Amino acid sequence: MSATADDFRWMARALELAARGLFTTTPNPRVGCVIVRDGQMVGEGWHVRAGEAHAEVHALAMAGESARGATAYVTLEPCSHHGRTPPCADALIKAGVQRVVVAMSDPNPLVSGRGLQRLRDAGIDTLAGIQEGEARELNIGFISRMTRGRPWLRLKAAATLDGKTALENGVSQWITGEDARRDAHRWRARSCAVLTGIGTVRDDDPQLNVRAVATERQPLRVVVDARLDTPLNARLLDGGPVLIAAAVDNPERIAALQRRGADVVVLPNDGGKVDLNALMLELGRRGLNEVTAESGFKLNGSLLREGCVDEIVLYLAPFLVGDAARGLFNLPALNALADKRPLNIRDVRLVGQDLRILARPA
Amino acid sequence: MSATADDFRWMARALELAARGLFTTTPNPRVGCVIVRDGQMVGEGWHVRAGEAHAEVHALAMAGESARGATAYVTLEPCSHHGRTPPCADALIKAGVQRVVVAMSDPNPLVSGRGLQRLRDAGIDTLAGIQEGEARELNIGFISRMTRGRPWLRLKAAATLDGKTALENGVSQWITGEDARRDAHRWRARSCAVLTGIGTVRDDDPQLNVRAVATERQPLRVVVDARLDTPLNARLLDGGPVLIAAAVDNPERIAALQRRGADVVVLPNDGGKVDLNALMLELGRRGLNEVTAESGFKLNGSLLREGCVDEIVLYLAPFLVGDAARGLFNLPALNALADKRPLNIRDVRLVGQDLRILARPA
Repeated sequence: MSATADDFRWMARALELAARGLFTTTPNPRVGCVIVRDGQMVGEGWHVRAGEAHAEVHALAMAGESARGATAYVTLEPCSHHGRTPPCADALIKAGVQRVVVAMSDPNPLVSGRGLQRLRDAGIDTLAGIQEGEARELNIGFISRMTRGRPWLRLKAAATLDGKTALENGVSQWITGEDARRDAHRWRARSCAVLTGIGTVRDDDPQLNVRAVATERQPLRVVVDARLDTPLNARLLDGGPVLIAAAVDNPERIAALQRRGADVVVLPNDGGKVDLNALMLELGRRGLNEVTAESGFKLNGSLLREGCVDEIVLYLAPFLVGDAARGLFNLPALNALADKRPLNIRDVRLVGQDLRILARPA
Repeated sequence: MSATADDFRWMARALELAARGLFTTTPNPRVGCVIVRDGQMVGEGWHVRAGEAHAEVHALAMAGESARGATAYVTLEPCSHHGRTPPCADALIKAGVQRVVVAMSDPNPLVSGRGLQRLRDAGIDTLAGIQEGEARELNIGFISRMTRGRPWLRLKAAATLDGKTALENGVSQWITGEDARRDAHRWRARSCAVLTGIGTVRDDDPQLNVRAVATERQPLRVVVDARLDTPLNARLLDGGPVLIAAAVDNPERIAALQRRGADVVVLPNDGGKVDLNALMLELGRRGLNEVTAESGFKLNGSLLREGCVDEIVLYLAPFLVGDAARGLFNLPALNALADKRPLNIRDVRLVGQDLRILARPA
C-alpha cells in the first residue's frame, strides 16, 4: 500500500515527538511514535532515556484497546530483539495494530529489516521510508556509530566575518554574542561528548559543560592531550566524566589524572601525536553518537586534515579585525586553489547578531 | 491628510518603476511615478537617462486628461528648478493633479522641500515619507553625494568560508562560482565607478567592466596607483574611461597614461600614498553616486582604515584553505578584541553555492 498525505503528516508528528529526546536518549536513538485510528490520534509517545520504555510502548499504553486495527507511525524500525526492554515489534503485534509505517529501517546492519519482517510475518501491513531524510538527520550520530563504528563529529568554531579567531598577540575573548553562545550550548547538550585540545585547556581553562540551556545530562569531556599536560587543577576535571586521549604512556602522570577522576586512553600515531581516527573509533566503542569539537586553531586543523570532521557549525561575528589576527584552521599551505577543501552549505541563519553557517565536507 | 494602505501600495509600484533605472540614470537619481484616479492607475513612468524626461513627465503624458483631480505618487520630491528639463512641480500643477505623495524629500539641502512647497502654494495636498526607507536605499549613492559630497563606497570582496582570498604563494584564482560572479557584475552595473588598486591591476590585469549582465552604460574605472605604475598595456586602458589617482606628479608618466586615454589626478597624503578621502571627494565632484571597490588585501585594508567604506558585499565560497593563505583585509594588529570593527549584517543569502553577506560599519 502506498503512502498518503496523512502518512506524511502523522510521521511529521512522530518526528516532533522523537526530537523531545534530543538531550536525553543517548546512547539510544531518538524515536517517536503516533498511533492513529479512523483518522484520530489515539496514542503517542517518545523514547526518553536508555533503559526506559521505547516510544512504541508509551504510545501503545496511551492507546489501550484503541490500538486494535490502528496504524502505528514510528520514526525508526521497531526492534525485534530483547535488549534492556522486550521487542517493540512483539508489542505492536500483541496490541493488534493493523499497519506500521516507519521513517527509516534500523541502521544497525545486524538487525536492519528484522523488525519489519517480524511484523509482516504476523500479517501486519508495513511501509518504510516516509520522511526518511528527517529521521536520519535526527539520529545522525546513532547512524554514524552503527554504520561506521564512530561518532558523528561536529566541529564548532567562531570567528569574525573576516575569519579571525584571536589577535596576533594571542588574545582570544568571546567573539560571538549571548545568543550564539546559548545556541552553542544546545549543540553541546545534544552531544554525547565535547572534544577539545590541550591548547584550549591550558589557554582558556574551560568547563565545557552545558550551562546556558536546561539539560539533565552532561556530555563527556574529551581532551586530546598527547603528552598528558592537562593541569591537575584544570576546571574541567571538577565536573563529571573526562576522557584524556594521550600519545605517551606515562604511568605516573596517568595515575595522577585518574586520581582526579579522569579516564585516560593512549592512542599514539607514528608522529607522536594522538591518532585521531583511532580516537574516533574508541569513542564509537564507548557508545558515543554525536561529538562536538570545540577546539582551537591547531586541533581544528588536525581534525580536518585527518578527515574526522563530518559537519562544521561556524559562527561569524559581525566584526572585522584584519589579517594580523589568527585564523580558524591550521592547515598546510596549498599550492593551488583547486586543492581547497569543498563544503556543502546546509543552513545559514542569524543567531542574535551573529551569522551561523552549517556545512558539511562535500 | 494621513496615509492609507493604498498610498503604500501605489508607492511600492512607483519604487518598482524607479528601480528600472538602476543601471542608467546616473548621475541623476532613480525615480518612479504612478498617477492614480478613482483607485485606478492612469499613468506611470520612470526616469531613464540624465537629460531625458523625468518620471513625472512620462507618467503625466500617459495619463493625459485623466491626471486632473488625480493623486501622483513619486519616489522623490518633484524638482522645482529648471535643470536640463523644466520643473516637474510645475508640470504636476499644470496637469491639475490634486494630491502628491512622495517617498522622500530632495536630499540636496539647497533645494529640499521647495518642490513640495511649490505644490502646496498651488493648492495641492502633499504627503511625504511613504516608504522612505526603501526610497533612500534605492538612491543611497545620490543621497551620499548630495549630503556628504562623496559617493557611497561599496567594497566587494570574495573569500573562502575561512576568510581566505589567495594562497601563501600568492595564487589567486576565482574563488566564487558563476552565480556570484554574475551578481558581482550587477553591483558593477549599478555603480558609477569601479575602484581598484595598482596591485590588482598588476597581478590580475582585469577589465573591470560589466560583461555578465546586460547594460547600456559602463562604469568609470578608477585605479589607486600612488606611483603611476599602471602598465601602458593594462587591459583596462583599452575599454572606456579610466581615472588614475596618483600620489606623485610625474608629467612624463602622466602624459603617457593620458595618451592611452586615462585621466590622472594627483592627490598625495602625508605618507606619500593616495589620500583616499580626498579621492572620494574628487569622485563626488565628478558626479559619481555609487562606487564599487574591487581591490585586494592592501587597498581593502586602507579603505577600511581610512573610514571610506560605507558597505561591504562579501561573498564566501564553501571551501576551506587553512590559515597559511592570505586574508581579506590588511589592517594593523589589534591589541584587544574590543577594538574590533563592528558591522551590521543587513542581508544574507546563498547566491549559487556561495554565501553573500551585505554589511555596513555599525
